[in-house]
Amino acid sequence: MELPFHTLQWIGGRPGHVSMIEQTLLPTQRVDHVVRDVPGMVDAIYRLAVRGAPAIGVAAAFGVMLGVQGFRGLSPEETLGRTREIAATLAKARPTAVNLFWALDRMVARADREAAAGAGGDAIVAALFDEGHTIYREDRETCLRLGEVGAERIADGQTLLTHCNAGALATAGIGTALAPMYVAAHQGKRISVFADETRPLLQGARITAWELAQAGIDVTVITDNMAGHVMKSGKIDAVFVGSDRIARNGDVCNKIGTYSVAVLAKEHGIPFYVVAPLSTFDRELTDGSQIPIEERPAEEVSEGLGKRTAPPGVKVFNPAFDVTPAALVAGIVTEAGWIDQPNRERVEAVLREAGALAG
Amino acid sequence: MELPFHTLQWIGGRPGHVSMIEQTLLPTQRVDHVVRDVPGMVDAIYRLAVRGAPAIGVAAAFGVMLGVQGFRGLSPEETLGRTREIAATLAKARPTAVNLFWALDRMVARADREAAAGAGGDAIVAALFDEGHTIYREDRETCLRLGEVGAERIADGQTLLTHCNAGALATAGIGTALAPMYVAAHQGKRISVFADETRPLLQGARITAWELAQAGIDVTVITDNMAGHVMKSGKIDAVFVGSDRIARNGDVCNKIGTYSVAVLAKEHGIPFYVVAPLSTFDRELTDGSQIPIEERPAEEVSEGLGKRTAPPGVKVFNPAFDVTPAALVAGIVTEAGWIDQPNRERVEAVLREAGALAG
Repeated sequence: MELPFHTLQWIGGRPGHVSMIEQTLLPTQRVDHVVRDVPGMVDAIYRLAVRGAPAIGVAAAFGVMLGVQGFRGLSPEETLGRTREIAATLAKARPTAVNLFWALDRMVARADREAAAGAGGDAIVAALFDEGHTIYREDRETCLRLGEVGAERIADGQTLLTHCNAGALATAGIGTALAPMYVAAHQGKRISVFADETRPLLQGARITAWELAQAGIDVTVITDNMAGHVMKSGKIDAVFVGSDRIARNGDVCNKIGTYSVAVLAKEHGIPFYVVAPLSTFDRELTDGSQIPIEERPAEEVSEGLGKRTAPPGVKVFNPAFDVTPAALVAGIVTEAGWIDQPNRERVEAVLREAGALAG
Repeated sequence: MELPFHTLQWIGGRPGHVSMIEQTLLPTQRVDHVVRDVPGMVDAIYRLAVRGAPAIGVAAAFGVMLGVQGFRGLSPEETLGRTREIAATLAKARPTAVNLFWALDRMVARADREAAAGAGGDAIVAALFDEGHTIYREDRETCLRLGEVGAERIADGQTLLTHCNAGALATAGIGTALAPMYVAAHQGKRISVFADETRPLLQGARITAWELAQAGIDVTVITDNMAGHVMKSGKIDAVFVGSDRIARNGDVCNKIGTYSVAVLAKEHGIPFYVVAPLSTFDRELTDGSQIPIEERPAEEVSEGLGKRTAPPGVKVFNPAFDVTPAALVAGIVTEAGWIDQPNRERVEAVLREAGALAG
């Protein structure tokens, strides 16, 4: 299935370029931003023209391809050296984006493997193109699979609620939390979605609402504090959210406000589902209490929209994430299937089965 | 006790004028706005320079005083006729503000009573000044009493959470939900307050944070969706909110988002308190399901801060209020004392005792 927009894609062969939705202009303007070189990709990642962990990973891989595509007749050593420099440059674009490093490490490792196997410079460049396209394709396949698995629990006529943006615009494919909605709609199910606006950065209002509307899905924006009232009115059949990190016991770290939505869903007997690829599970975390919560600048809250909304000098608390205990999660959608009523035993069984956990 | 600002007050005798905090300029500028005539008061109420039900009632009474203060030697009939015209003009300033009509009706009724008792025009005007000053004084006394009653449950060192603005700036006194905080601080208790910013109109960030900071109370602004995380972190000892209407069974109608806060408080075992004068109880309502929820324009959500935050044309649901079931309310603070674990029996007993309920 195809959405009527591409978050980012490689255009042409070698040489080619990257076209991406300029997300800083959403929701009022749709502009396709063209990136032709490494500095351009650093800029795009830094400016948040492209955002969302999976999409940033793909952007980084494409960035390496942009950097090496002009190489001709270089030695393997020179090709490796320049590839590492390109990766180091791209890594500085967003120093806390784990997927950025993951994708760059994977690209460099591929180049290393090819060189170790005796490949010449041109063959290494060709392999980097293969690796970059593979990262892109795998992300799209994972999204599609998450959508197919998640859509099993969406019935015709249902209304869903989501928080923040774990959508197509955060990936190269159809997203994570929104993927089941796109697949359900593609299957002919008539669904409606309530999107929490998601203060302070409003990813729900700006991005989720935009992409669902583009795809022709009925979407209604609400402020975060309306979720309880909407649930109490009987309007919501299920909640679907994404995740940034999941502990081995099923505790879910996600955008601030997710925990409140989970508590409200429990109060109203509404299933609260998390959609996340297996790569989201962090084997180092035994439970959610070990997840440090990033605190971001006060100005995101007090001056978020260019106009000051709190008195100058007043204290602001601005945690970027919260942790939802596994007990509030009805199910986690992964590319390996559902993990219902997640707990340590069930999460570890799925990770072990998928080869993502030793033992 | 006195706060370092006056929401609105009558300056001088007769003639005099009204000075009010220009609330449209908060939180970045403090300007005292002077109102000298009826059109000026209509303008101030319409523009929300003064807002909050009790404050609007006082503003309306002061508006009548401004209108009649120049009368000299008029007949009782002419005085009454002109007073009614003034009241009708003021009533149009905000056609859904119940306290506006309540105060105007009370002023006109006083004039009628005086005339019926044989008063001349000048005596009627004098009586209207007495009535207006009484409305102002009663509002302040009620606020102070609410604060004294509510502060009984606030201990030294506690941290409280509030939603929207049920503060001094919504009354002529020290507010309703914030009154117990002001009294507790005045009693020497060291307290801290978390203020939900309260989308879409941000009364918490703009107004509550401003007035608490002015009064020297430690205040921290959070977005609405952070309340659950803050409660889970163990930071909150009690929640205090105001109310627009309370049904006879104790169901509480208040600013949108209040219900979500109440559910979250229950989940964390935190007492959820409502502070409201007895006039807030609506004898016509047997329970909260009978309260119509006003839906306001989409633009408050999608363009609330002058910059569009949702895609043009996307649907927005914007209910202004929600209803918190009595079962989630640990106690209601009234000027007649606490109503703990409110239900029909306990609410009606207090209303009957106070003479606010027949039988």
